[in-house]
Order: sequence, then C-alpha cells, then structure tokens
Amino acid sequence: MSDVKIVTAAVVVIGNEILSGRTKDLNLGYIAAGLTGIGIRLTEGRFIPDVEATIIATVNELRARHDYVFTTGGIGPTHDDITAAAIAKAFGVPLILHPVAARLLSDHYGPENLTEARMRMAHTPEGAELIDNPVSIAPGIKIGNVFVLAGVPRICQAMFDGLKGGLRGGDPVLSRTVSGYIGEGVIAKDLGELQDRHPALEIGSYPFFRQGKFGASFVIRGTDKAEIDRAAGALHAIIKKLGADPIEGEPAG
Amino acid sequence: MSDVKIVTAAVVVIGNEILSGRTKDLNLGYIAAGLTGIGIRLTEGRFIPDVEATIIATVNELRARHDYVFTTGGIGPTHDDITAAAIAKAFGVPLILHPVAARLLSDHYGPENLTEARMRMAHTPEGAELIDNPVSIAPGIKIGNVFVLAGVPRICQAMFDGLKGGLRGGDPVLSRTVSGYIGEGVIAKDLGELQDRHPALEIGSYPFFRQGKFGASFVIRGTDKAEIDRAAGALHAIIKKLGADPIEGEPAG
Repeated sequence: MSDVKIVTAAVVVIGNEILSGRTKDLNLGYIAAGLTGIGIRLTEGRFIPDVEATIIATVNELRARHDYVFTTGGIGPTHDDITAAAIAKAFGVPLILHPVAARLLSDHYGPENLTEARMRMAHTPEGAELIDNPVSIAPGIKIGNVFVLAGVPRICQAMFDGLKGGLRGGDPVLSRTVSGYIGEGVIAKDLGELQDRHPALEIGSYPFFRQGKFGASFVIRGTDKAEIDRAAGALHAIIKKLGADPIEGEPAG
Repeated sequence: MSDVKIVTAAVVVIGNEILSGRTKDLNLGYIAAGLTGIGIRLTEGRFIPDVEATIIATVNELRARHDYVFTTGGIGPTHDDITAAAIAKAFGVPLILHPVAARLLSDHYGPENLTEARMRMAHTPEGAELIDNPVSIAPGIKIGNVFVLAGVPRICQAMFDGLKGGLRGGDPVLSRTVSGYIGEGVIAKDLGELQDRHPALEIGSYPFFRQGKFGASFVIRGTDKAEIDRAAGALHAIIKKLGADPIEGEPAG
C-alpha cells in the first residue's frame, strides 16, 4: 500500500463562543465530509480561543505537517475578530489593505457606509489570495496552504464549497457500510479477526439504537475496492452466522 | 484581577468517524456549556483519530496543563475501541480487569452473554475509578485529572451530568447578553472602545440573521458582576445612539 497517495488536512475552529458552549460548531463536520468526498483525510481538529498567540502557534504547527489547514471564525469587523492579523504574524508578513477586497466591500456597502470597522475585513496578510464569499461579500483568505474561513456556518460552508474544486485530493478513500441488528459485544470477536485479515482496511463499528432495538453499522474504508468488497462479503456471512440479517448501508428509519 | 481563581479544562474527541464526517460531534458543545455553568473554562478542544500514539501524546500534553481533561469515544467492545488501553499507556500503568466493572457487566448481560469482547469494557488503567453509565452500564473511567467518557452522545452526556457535581469549579464566569438589530460594522468602533475601557471583561460580538434582518448579540463575560452591569449599561446607550433598540438577552424568534 506504499504507493497510495495520502493528502491530509487539519481544521482549526477559532472562537470563545464555541468553547463557552454558547454556540455549537457546525463547520468541522461539514468540512470533514467535504474533504472525505474528494480524497483528503482530515486527521486533526483543534478548537481554540480568540487568543493571538494561540492562533499563531496552532496554525504554524499544523501547516507544517498537513497539506491543507482550514480555520473558521474571527474574520468579521469587530475588535474580537483577530484571525487575519494573527495569520499574518504566523506567516511573518504584514497585514495590508487588499485592493480587490476593498473594492468588493465598497461596492457592497456604498462608500458612505464603508466604516473603518468594515474596512478591517479588507485587510489580508501580504501575498494572500481572496476566497469568494457569496453570502455576505467580505472574503476569506488563502495564504500558503492555509484557508481562513468565516465562522457563521452558512458563510463558512459557502466559502468551502466554492474553493473545494481547487483542492488537490489524494487517492480517494472508498467505503462500504454494512449494518445489522446485532450487539457490538456479540460480533466483536469475529469483527476483530476480520480486521486482522485486512490490515490495509479500516473497519469501524458504530452502535445505534433504532426502532427500539440495538444494532451497529460497520464501515469498511480503504483505497482498494476489490478488497473492501471481499471484506464486506465476509461481514455479511458473519452477521448471518450470528443470527441477524445483514443490511447493506445504514438501516432505514 | 490576579485573585481570580481560574480552573481550565480540555476536551478530546476521539474517533475516525468524526474526522471522516460520517458522524457529527455533539459532545464538545454539551460539555462546554456544562463546564461554563460551574465555573470551569474550556480553553482547548482536540479532535483526533483512533490512533494509540496520538491518544497518548494528546492526553499527556493536555493533562499537564489543564485542571481537567475529558475524552469522548473509543470505550466500547470492538477492536477499534482503544481508548482505555491508550490512557493506561499514557499514565504508564497496566490495563487491568476492574472487579466492580466486571460485576456490573455480568449482572447486566448475564454470565452466558458476557462475551470476551464485552469484558473488554471492564478493563481500566490500574488505579482508575469508574464513572457511572446510567444508559448502558459499561462505565467510564477516571484516572488522575482525566475523565474517559463514551462517544455515543446520550451516554456521554449522562456520564458527564453524573460526574459534574464532583468537579471543583473556579470563580464562575458571569455573562450578560445585549442584542440589537444593528450591523456589526456600524457598532464595531464603539464596541472596541468599550472593550478597551473594560480590559478585565471579554466582550464578544456574534452576528445573526433573523426575521429577515441582520443584527448581533454582544456577550459581556467576566467575574465582576458590577463591572459587567456597568458595561452593559454603556452598551445599551451605544445601541440607542446608533438608532437601534437594545434588547436584553437574545432577540426573540
């Protein structure tokens, strides 16, 4: 499997309101699913406060070891929006007025409503490119392998959807899910042996409770479709042997 | 403010299914809100895969710098549930059969259904205490300042609710929220000046879009109620000056 091309990413969720529990994060899961779909493996997530030194240290640590880093939050017009300035410091470049961003905001708000605070959203680290914001104009920022997105989910997700096509994925991770109304503790031994026979695959077991019954979904992931299908066939046989009906995919309901 | 007692915590969400986007995390936000309510500040969250070395390194890094660490995920009966063993290695102690956990599981499943896989859930790092699981019996684990909880949200949350009363909080973080149908870019300058006048407080600005209108909630957090109230009074005046109606709390709808 050494010829498999693996591309990894990290997500950094920035915001005191997330860590206080006031606001629930909806962005990490969205980005995670989007990356999986294009063959990029999210292998790390960080939730950090609006603290400049923490943002700098976190981004510099992660951008060195991942192909892509996505941050969400802290790019609005108020004093607590410090992400853009922190990213500039992380890259050791000045924060400058980006002429295209300034024009976008001027066109949107009109020169008379273009407050100093709103112009804050036109400042980017020197050398950065803009990320399109189809919802509320103020752009995101791309510098090096770091993508700086908004925190508001609708905006974050629109920015991500727009830039996704430009990302370079690795070999896609394929997956096949088989489920059954069977206790994890009943199937665990056979499942572990199946995993041992297929070290190149990753077999996950996820319990659920539906329609008044316990069951589990077994997700087989890997890059070799034929091997996944062989493992899935064996899993069907295991579930039958243990007296349950294998269900391809997630159970209905 | 140097006499304020600050107690911090970190949350570690463990699971490939979260990082692939298959499953959305619901636990970090729940624990975050619960901690805030008892005066413990969640200052860091990590999302990591089911990889032993990563779990060990992450837990050891975080338990050294926080009063409390909470992990979620990876304590079931299947081969991919490796958290308990990893935590034992993080603490440099053997993983042992916990007699109380074994009896709980034996009573629950009956000796005839107590598979080897289920007995896996009765193994804890040596010296650990059990965390009550009122939903599905198999207990969580407390060792040192680390609390090892289930990943299934209903179970994780029940475990957390049960143990919360035993945590030692710091001075509670008080907060007051004032909202208004006013653009962040319009109020940002005054808001920043208000923040500058109250460096001991943390003033956050969170935009929203409701009933077809843009607005923002301003959350004032701190430990001194009188100062929070003074800042909130000033904020009411600022919102009025800018032509909007201050709303105490979050806007309706």
